[in-house]
Amino acid sequence: MELVTVKELYRKTDDYLDKEVMIGGWVRSIRDSKAFGFIVVNDGSFFEPVQVVYHDTMENFKEISKLNVGAAILVKGILVATPQAKQPFEIQAEEITIEGASAPDYPLQKKRHTLEYLRTMTHLRPRTNTFQAVFRVRSLAAYAIHKFFQERGFVYVHTPLITGSDCEGAGEMFQVTTMDLLNPPKTEDGDLDYSRDFFHKHTSLTVSGQLNAETFAQAFRDVYTFGPTFRAENSNTTRHAAEFWMIEPEIAFADLEDDMDLAEAMLKYVIRYVMEEAPEEMKFFNSFVDKGLIDRLKNVVESEFARVTYTDAIEILKKNNDNFEYKVEWGCDLQTEHERFLTEEIYKKPVFVTDYPKEIKAFYMKLNEDGKTVAAMDCLVPGIGEIIGGSQREDNYEKLRARMAELDMDLDEYGFYLDLRKFGSTRHAGYGLGFERCIMYLTGMSNIRDVLPFPRTVNNCEL
Amino acid sequence: MELVTVKELYRKTDDYLDKEVMIGGWVRSIRDSKAFGFIVVNDGSFFEPVQVVYHDTMENFKEISKLNVGAAILVKGILVATPQAKQPFEIQAEEITIEGASAPDYPLQKKRHTLEYLRTMTHLRPRTNTFQAVFRVRSLAAYAIHKFFQERGFVYVHTPLITGSDCEGAGEMFQVTTMDLLNPPKTEDGDLDYSRDFFHKHTSLTVSGQLNAETFAQAFRDVYTFGPTFRAENSNTTRHAAEFWMIEPEIAFADLEDDMDLAEAMLKYVIRYVMEEAPEEMKFFNSFVDKGLIDRLKNVVESEFARVTYTDAIEILKKNNDNFEYKVEWGCDLQTEHERFLTEEIYKKPVFVTDYPKEIKAFYMKLNEDGKTVAAMDCLVPGIGEIIGGSQREDNYEKLRARMAELDMDLDEYGFYLDLRKFGSTRHAGYGLGFERCIMYLTGMSNIRDVLPFPRTVNNCEL
Repeated sequence: MELVTVKELYRKTDDYLDKEVMIGGWVRSIRDSKAFGFIVVNDGSFFEPVQVVYHDTMENFKEISKLNVGAAILVKGILVATPQAKQPFEIQAEEITIEGASAPDYPLQKKRHTLEYLRTMTHLRPRTNTFQAVFRVRSLAAYAIHKFFQERGFVYVHTPLITGSDCEGAGEMFQVTTMDLLNPPKTEDGDLDYSRDFFHKHTSLTVSGQLNAETFAQAFRDVYTFGPTFRAENSNTTRHAAEFWMIEPEIAFADLEDDMDLAEAMLKYVIRYVMEEAPEEMKFFNSFVDKGLIDRLKNVVESEFARVTYTDAIEILKKNNDNFEYKVEWGCDLQTEHERFLTEEIYKKPVFVTDYPKEIKAFYMKLNEDGKTVAAMDCLVPGIGEIIGGSQREDNYEKLRARMAELDMDLDEYGFYLDLRKFGSTRHAGYGLGFERCIMYLTGMSNIRDVLPFPRTVNNCEL
Repeated sequence: MELVTVKELYRKTDDYLDKEVMIGGWVRSIRDSKAFGFIVVNDGSFFEPVQVVYHDTMENFKEISKLNVGAAILVKGILVATPQAKQPFEIQAEEITIEGASAPDYPLQKKRHTLEYLRTMTHLRPRTNTFQAVFRVRSLAAYAIHKFFQERGFVYVHTPLITGSDCEGAGEMFQVTTMDLLNPPKTEDGDLDYSRDFFHKHTSLTVSGQLNAETFAQAFRDVYTFGPTFRAENSNTTRHAAEFWMIEPEIAFADLEDDMDLAEAMLKYVIRYVMEEAPEEMKFFNSFVDKGLIDRLKNVVESEFARVTYTDAIEILKKNNDNFEYKVEWGCDLQTEHERFLTEEIYKKPVFVTDYPKEIKAFYMKLNEDGKTVAAMDCLVPGIGEIIGGSQREDNYEKLRARMAELDMDLDEYGFYLDLRKFGSTRHAGYGLGFERCIMYLTGMSNIRDVLPFPRTVNNCEL
């Protein structure tokens, strides 16, 4: 008999009620009395489990009653409505087959475990309620992002992970090599001889796909990347991981306003999609992880994001300098406390801060007419602070080259990037969204280790 | 005025005909006589370009006529039907604005360039017909894969790229490190002291997400990965890249038959999606890259894939041994010549070869009752050979442990993997599809360097 998923039982209950069904899943809890027993089964297809009732008329009644939490079973029986009970239906079992028992030392028992404890068992924690919810939302959000861009005709470009350049010097990088490290090839001068490494040059793991994506935007107009990026930063915080996923759209014939419009539409689309597709999970987060989450997200979907220049934001923040650990003044970088104050206290909704001083932003951002600021934008959201950072790109060959020279960059290495300004340059813009930060925002989870399936952080590379 | 995409002009022509429209795009060719001129413009949203007619009534007529191929322009004008011409419509320009000129040394001219030549300019080749077609198909195929799995309730899991394990020893790996390679930390014994590396252990780039995906399948039932994988193999062929993307679904409560059903349904879905969404591109490939491509793909979509055991396949192949470079006998691995003979000459459609000798397959594959073969499958397709490799996984704790011991594997390192067989083990299966091979199959392109946006191969890591 074909297995039906628990999701189908919940979403199309009427099709299955009072009929024989068969499910396969894992025991969440089991209790028995002399003549019958109850098993709560989750099959991973749906957040809610199904209750199974079984009786001692079954041949293997005793064997089943001895099952431990975590066991895999097949259940054949009749789906019966239970109007008096908390759950909408249960399965009256006719036959239960044990697919795989669960040894007595199974570390997940019915009681609640701490997230710290669960982090010590990356391979089993997806079986708990919290991680079922987190990783299903992660999957749905990833798909929502693809759907959003594809529906708008964007081309998905796989930018490379191994890179010979250091992008914008955006962070510490991991080196990639096949050299024998105990006995690496050296030049006559005693330096490492990278001409004998795999790629015949020094290579690292990328920190951003942006510059590559720009080459595609100058051919396809609207493109996006969605892939892993890396930081070898030695920071052991709840917000940093060495390996994480990033979304980076890049749009041609577009300026900073278009960029913000796109970011706003994308965030709203993803939130809406997840709330529609995972209502059970979102309710769980709202009840047990972050009370007020759903209201906050609804507010984001329904409000028009505010927009304020950095210069105006500094004026607003200055009035509150007494309450900040870091006092602000024009020219400083904004700290999380400032960002959260703006979005939570002043605007009470997401806000784009635009036109930052060029000194605190990357070389490729378009210089504004004032000569002091660049056409950058950060999107700040309540509860998090910065979630998106983007800019219009400098599309003027002379200005870009001058800025690169000013910063002492290797113009040869960036020849391809300058070429884009030499051959059919266009206004263009883009942004980066850290996917894990987005998932933390959607779920209320507060540690990045708990939204990454297999987190990589300093000193931690399990499985 | 809002820009309209060329795709919209083609797909919703009636909405725009005889109305004023504005497009932004790049000059593909330009020719002028004294009083008027023609510009062919492509905006990257669509394979076909638009012809623009302009007249000397324009103030900047001379400036425009001097434009070089590759220049970016904005064109405002009336969309007019051209029933006598090859193209369905053209834009009668009222106003043309130069967004970015193209310097005289622009390396892409109207004539046809070789793929080899275009490989020397990774950043510009997406502007050519061939690469417009390849990379749009790549984007659509990636989305089709997500769509296929998401519609079936699969959970997308991001398996990690940096790994502390060597998976199945499936290939040479790149090392990932932050150590100072000129002066690496060493132990008292003179070995490298990886406890002082970033992760406090030796780490590499993954060759497969399968083992990680299995942990999620034992929680979510149906899952898939889709991400980059790496091979540090020193092979300079048209089919090998150091960095490529792979799709790896993993399904619980499922056996080898289910696995093959899934693979067959997925391939058909992706082919259908691309043929529907990119008919112009597919026609181009069929005419200029691989004559017969469309018929071959249609045949795949319409046929039921054949299934044959390895043992039977060997009998079939033996009869043709005279014509093979490598003679077959039971126990040998199949070469591309054998695979292609089976799928092209014998079955004339895709075929699954199943139940290979355990010695030539990976440790995790389920041992069949004969004790000699494992429940593996390779999917062979005409024109390529193997495109998918998969198996049912060994779900029996004792058997898996014994096989791992036999192969002298580190049982501690794979403790998590054995745990999956100890706590609620299920029949489960999965497969891997190399995404680039899939794109080569869909487009007829014969070099993997031409289906990767930024190829990484031995000695090549540009941009």
